Amino acid sequence: MPISFADRLNNVETSAIRELFKLLGKPGIISFAGGFPDSAMFDVDGIREAVNTALSEEPGGALQYGATEGYQPLREQIASFMHGKGVKDLSPEQLIVTTGSQQGLDLLGKTLISPGDKVIVEGPTFLATIQCFRLYGAQLISAPVDGNGVKTDELEQLMAEHKPKFVYLIPTFGNPSGALLNLERRKAVLAMAVKHQTLIVEDDPYGDLYFGEAPPPSLLALSASVPGSRELLVHCGSLSKVLSPGLRVGWMVGPAELLSRATMCKQFSDAHTSTFAQATAAQYLKAGRMPATLAKVRAVYAERAATMGRALKRELGDAIDFVPPQGGLFVWARLTGAGGKVGDGATFAQRAIEKGVAFVPGAPFYAANPDLSTLRLSFATAGLEKIEEGVGRLGEAI
Amino acid sequence: MPISFADRLNNVETSAIRELFKLLGKPGIISFAGGFPDSAMFDVDGIREAVNTALSEEPGGALQYGATEGYQPLREQIASFMHGKGVKDLSPEQLIVTTGSQQGLDLLGKTLISPGDKVIVEGPTFLATIQCFRLYGAQLISAPVDGNGVKTDELEQLMAEHKPKFVYLIPTFGNPSGALLNLERRKAVLAMAVKHQTLIVEDDPYGDLYFGEAPPPSLLALSASVPGSRELLVHCGSLSKVLSPGLRVGWMVGPAELLSRATMCKQFSDAHTSTFAQATAAQYLKAGRMPATLAKVRAVYAERAATMGRALKRELGDAIDFVPPQGGLFVWARLTGAGGKVGDGATFAQRAIEKGVAFVPGAPFYAANPDLSTLRLSFATAGLEKIEEGVGRLGEAI
Repeated sequence: MPISFADRLNNVETSAIRELFKLLGKPGIISFAGGFPDSAMFDVDGIREAVNTALSEEPGGALQYGATEGYQPLREQIASFMHGKGVKDLSPEQLIVTTGSQQGLDLLGKTLISPGDKVIVEGPTFLATIQCFRLYGAQLISAPVDGNGVKTDELEQLMAEHKPKFVYLIPTFGNPSGALLNLERRKAVLAMAVKHQTLIVEDDPYGDLYFGEAPPPSLLALSASVPGSRELLVHCGSLSKVLSPGLRVGWMVGPAELLSRATMCKQFSDAHTSTFAQATAAQYLKAGRMPATLAKVRAVYAERAATMGRALKRELGDAIDFVPPQGGLFVWARLTGAGGKVGDGATFAQRAIEKGVAFVPGAPFYAANPDLSTLRLSFATAGLEKIEEGVGRLGEAI
Repeated sequence: MPISFADRLNNVETSAIRELFKLLGKPGIISFAGGFPDSAMFDVDGIREAVNTALSEEPGGALQYGATEGYQPLREQIASFMHGKGVKDLSPEQLIVTTGSQQGLDLLGKTLISPGDKVIVEGPTFLATIQCFRLYGAQLISAPVDGNGVKTDELEQLMAEHKPKFVYLIPTFGNPSGALLNLERRKAVLAMAVKHQTLIVEDDPYGDLYFGEAPPPSLLALSASVPGSRELLVHCGSLSKVLSPGLRVGWMVGPAELLSRATMCKQFSDAHTSTFAQATAAQYLKAGRMPATLAKVRAVYAERAATMGRALKRELGDAIDFVPPQGGLFVWARLTGAGGKVGDGATFAQRAIEKGVAFVPGAPFYAANPDLSTLRLSFATAGLEKIEEGVGRLGEAI
């Protein structure tokens, strides 16, 4: 029998993603294609200590069903962690724990999006966000981005024109753009939220991964100084990029009414996030190991980013254009056409694979009007020599 | 600003659930209200050993992003575990790991249910299933149940009449009915699936918790002997009731095309189930501790069930009617009206709370036409003395 699937599945087109993954399987490939942190950065000893403490001190809490909102000691640790990042007034009850920040996105879709509702996202934005919101029937509007993040004038025009259900932004070292929304634009976004009475979703999995100076405060931290903006702001955080994606521990801060509905939806999505992982994360944060872990990953990724940036300039010259990232995991680049040898990002990706190096073409990251000349290069998982060698191969491919 | 939520939230009514939970907070209450296993049964030492082995042998696998389909060593262990339960021909690729079996239900809803689609469930059935499917817009049809599980003649009439998207059953010690679908009816269900070309979902979180003889084979195991039925069968399993709910490790077996779509949906729901929990579960199963754990929990729950059954007969006599459970966590009972002192299950629950004992009235477990005289009593989390004392209080309350 051919199974008759739900209509919502017609809203997503996954072949672009599958095509990307097909590129990655060849042996000997140096990969700049991943979107994940380096396993070698994981603080295995710290996590081992944390899980053993959790199982000794609170085996029931770590192994039994738990509250859908999250394991209370973890909510307290996350509130304290956010306090350290400039969010001074956050109580544990003002956040819920999610199964990675991906689930935060899913709960926003489930809670807010009716089929046909409009949602504004950055162009480019996170691929799984596009598909996640489309599964709920969202009509996505794409707001342009430059090296300083989303262009706020254009964003405001789109908000006024489309009256979206919400605006989804990754303001700090976004995937894939790596861009950092500057302070002036952050304040403008919050002012626009109030002016247009429109929900803003700040997805912030990369904000801790800065290389030099700390980035401007998150929209959540800044909302304290923009009256009325806090009740229009949702913030999604994650331990995935700095501690371990395998824990699947994220969180969502938002207006009480929204968190209440999201909790209800989560109850029927997965009951609650693994208490085993939550209790481990709580003990890890409580043990005070996070500052040292962050210092280490920042230093390692900073060096890799700088190495990739220098090599790209040396090997590809003016054939590509990019803003050196100040944090995160990615270099987002545009083929300029100089030299005229390669066409778009997808063609260049094919040529690069033939030379033994993989990256991801940028077009699939656009919900609309893709810039075909773009590409995303991750510097996170290759060591310095591999980065030099891989960029050398890119130079041969161009 | 009042947030404008998605239309789908209008499909669920959670006040019934909230009312249940409000009953449970009082101090000194003996609770038969829970739906969870006893924390004292958890094999903490075995889980500690498993997680430490996982972190030593495969720290990357346990802490990094993983495949959406599941961590391959766990898929292999689950296939082997299912083999031990009579499913002889299951390959690891024929199952996906889910974040508890609750996520299996959510993925079925997301993958299969368009608003207005009909789904047949048992009356009564699992409360979170009702709400989960309704969030996706399902119109639920309720099939009657007796002490031998769903009444198959009535079920077939409903299938012919409503042509549902699928039929959802908990054939073995279901929540809340505790009923065991007998072998004859199991074969009838599979034959009906083929005859009506209708998907059957077998939710089986309790099948391992039998007290005497093993129950009849699962629908999944039996499907090997009913030609054409396997490709119409989905089976959801879980470690929650026998090992630990906090791991949030469940699985779903189903037709390849359905698993493929469910995997795509899962990618945008939570990316993957915690690899930290999956690697721990895989090591636990690999270590061979499950048979001893199962023997222990079966013996403990069997004694508690027998104690509760005897006490109910002694203290409440012919004022209630119930089938002594052969497994699972629950006694499902009906107030007969004998003695005439209490009305429906909800009224009796209020009286019982006043006497210091809690249980859950049965009406909310019906998607339609609730039997108001019903109640669910869990014997899982109270020791033998508390069971005697709590049932004594029920006797006072009636």
